[in-house]
Amino acid sequence: MEIRVLRRVLQKNDDAATENRLWFDERHVTCINLLGGAGSGKTAILEAVLPIFRGELRAAVLEGDLATTRDAERIARLDVPVIQLLTDGGCHLTATHVQRALDELPAGIDLLIIENVGNPICPANFDLGEHLRISALSVSEGDDKPSKYPLLFRDAALTLITKCDLLPFVPFDMAQARRDLLRVNPAMRILETSARSGKGVDELATWIMKHALSLGAL
Amino acid sequence: MEIRVLRRVLQKNDDAATENRLWFDERHVTCINLLGGAGSGKTAILEAVLPIFRGELRAAVLEGDLATTRDAERIARLDVPVIQLLTDGGCHLTATHVQRALDELPAGIDLLIIENVGNPICPANFDLGEHLRISALSVSEGDDKPSKYPLLFRDAALTLITKCDLLPFVPFDMAQARRDLLRVNPAMRILETSARSGKGVDELATWIMKHALSLGAL
Repeated sequence: MEIRVLRRVLQKNDDAATENRLWFDERHVTCINLLGGAGSGKTAILEAVLPIFRGELRAAVLEGDLATTRDAERIARLDVPVIQLLTDGGCHLTATHVQRALDELPAGIDLLIIENVGNPICPANFDLGEHLRISALSVSEGDDKPSKYPLLFRDAALTLITKCDLLPFVPFDMAQARRDLLRVNPAMRILETSARSGKGVDELATWIMKHALSLGAL
Repeated sequence: MEIRVLRRVLQKNDDAATENRLWFDERHVTCINLLGGAGSGKTAILEAVLPIFRGELRAAVLEGDLATTRDAERIARLDVPVIQLLTDGGCHLTATHVQRALDELPAGIDLLIIENVGNPICPANFDLGEHLRISALSVSEGDDKPSKYPLLFRDAALTLITKCDLLPFVPFDMAQARRDLLRVNPAMRILETSARSGKGVDELATWIMKHALSLGAL
C-alpha cells in the first residue's frame, strides 16, 4: 500500500518534471539541480560563482528550504533574480514546487540553478526536470559520505568537494573520497573547491558556462 | 490521499514506538535517539563518550544508516555491543526498525543509544520509543541551521554543538546559534563539544549517566 502510493507520488513528480524540461528547452534555459546535505556549502559556492556569469549569461536561482528566506536573501544581494521555495517541513523539492515558480522567473534567462533542500538523501529521488545535477560534499562532513549516501552522487554530472580550506583541520582522505565517488558514478567530474579561498570557483564557472551554452544551443 | 497514508504510516510508527518504550521500561533501559545531519559528528562523539561509561553503566548502540556498516564497525572497536540497522535507502529509522533489533540486544544493558540516519529533517518526525533526544549540530554546518531546520531541535533535551575545534576556521556565531536553538526549544540544554579535543565530552557523559540513572530507577 505504502509502496503503491509512493509510486503514484513519483509518477506525478516525473510527469511534472517532463513538463518542466519542455518548458526549459523551449526557452533555451539550462537547468541545474544542486544537491547536498545541510551545511555542505551550496549557497556559499553559488555566492562565489554567480558574479562570474555577469555579462556572460543571465542566471536565476530557485532556493529550496523548509523554513526561512535566508538563502534567497544571500542570493538577492548579488542582484541575481531568486525565488524562495518553502516546503513547509517537506524534506525535498518536487517538480511541482518548481513548476509553480516558472512563471515568476524573469524572461530571457539562460541558466536556472535550483538549490535543493539541504538533505543528502530524499532530494536525490525527485527529478525536477533539470538537465544536470551537481552534488556538494564538504570536507568537514567526512570522506565516508560517498559510500554512505551513494544516491546523492549517482546521477551527478559534477561533484563539488567544498570547504577545501578546512582540509588541514579535518580528517578527510581526498584520494579515498575520489575513489568512492567514482565507484558510485565513474562518469562524474570532481572539482575541489573553497568558497572562502576561491579554489576551484573559476573552473566551476567555466564548467557551468560550457554546459549552459552547449545545452542552450540545442 | 497522500496525507491519509502518511498518517497511517505515522500511526503504525507510534504504535511500535509505544511498544518499544514499554520494552525499555520493563528492563530499566534508558533509550536515547541521537539525531543530526550527515557528517555532524554523531559517531565521533559516541566514540569519545562510550569509553567513559565503562564500569558505570552497560551501554549498547543501534546504528542507523542507508548503506555500509562503517559506523557500527567504529563502535564495535570500543567493545560496545552494536547492531547496524540498514534502511536500504530509507531516509530515517522507524520504530519498527528498532523493534526488530530489540531481541538481538544483550541482556542487562542500562542504556541504548540509537544513532539515527544522518539527515536533519525526516528522522525528527519518527518517535522510536526513546526517552530522550539528543541533536547534533556541527560548527562547520553553519549557525543558520537552527532556524532552517527547527524540527531537528524542537524535541531535543540536549543539543550538542560539535566540532568546536573548527571554530577558529569557520564563520559560526555561537551566540546567534544558541539564541536560535533556545527560540526553537527554550527547555533545551546546549553543550559545546569536540570529539577531537575532548571539549565537553565529560559533561556529556555526566549528563547521559545522570539521566540514565534517574530514568532507569523508575
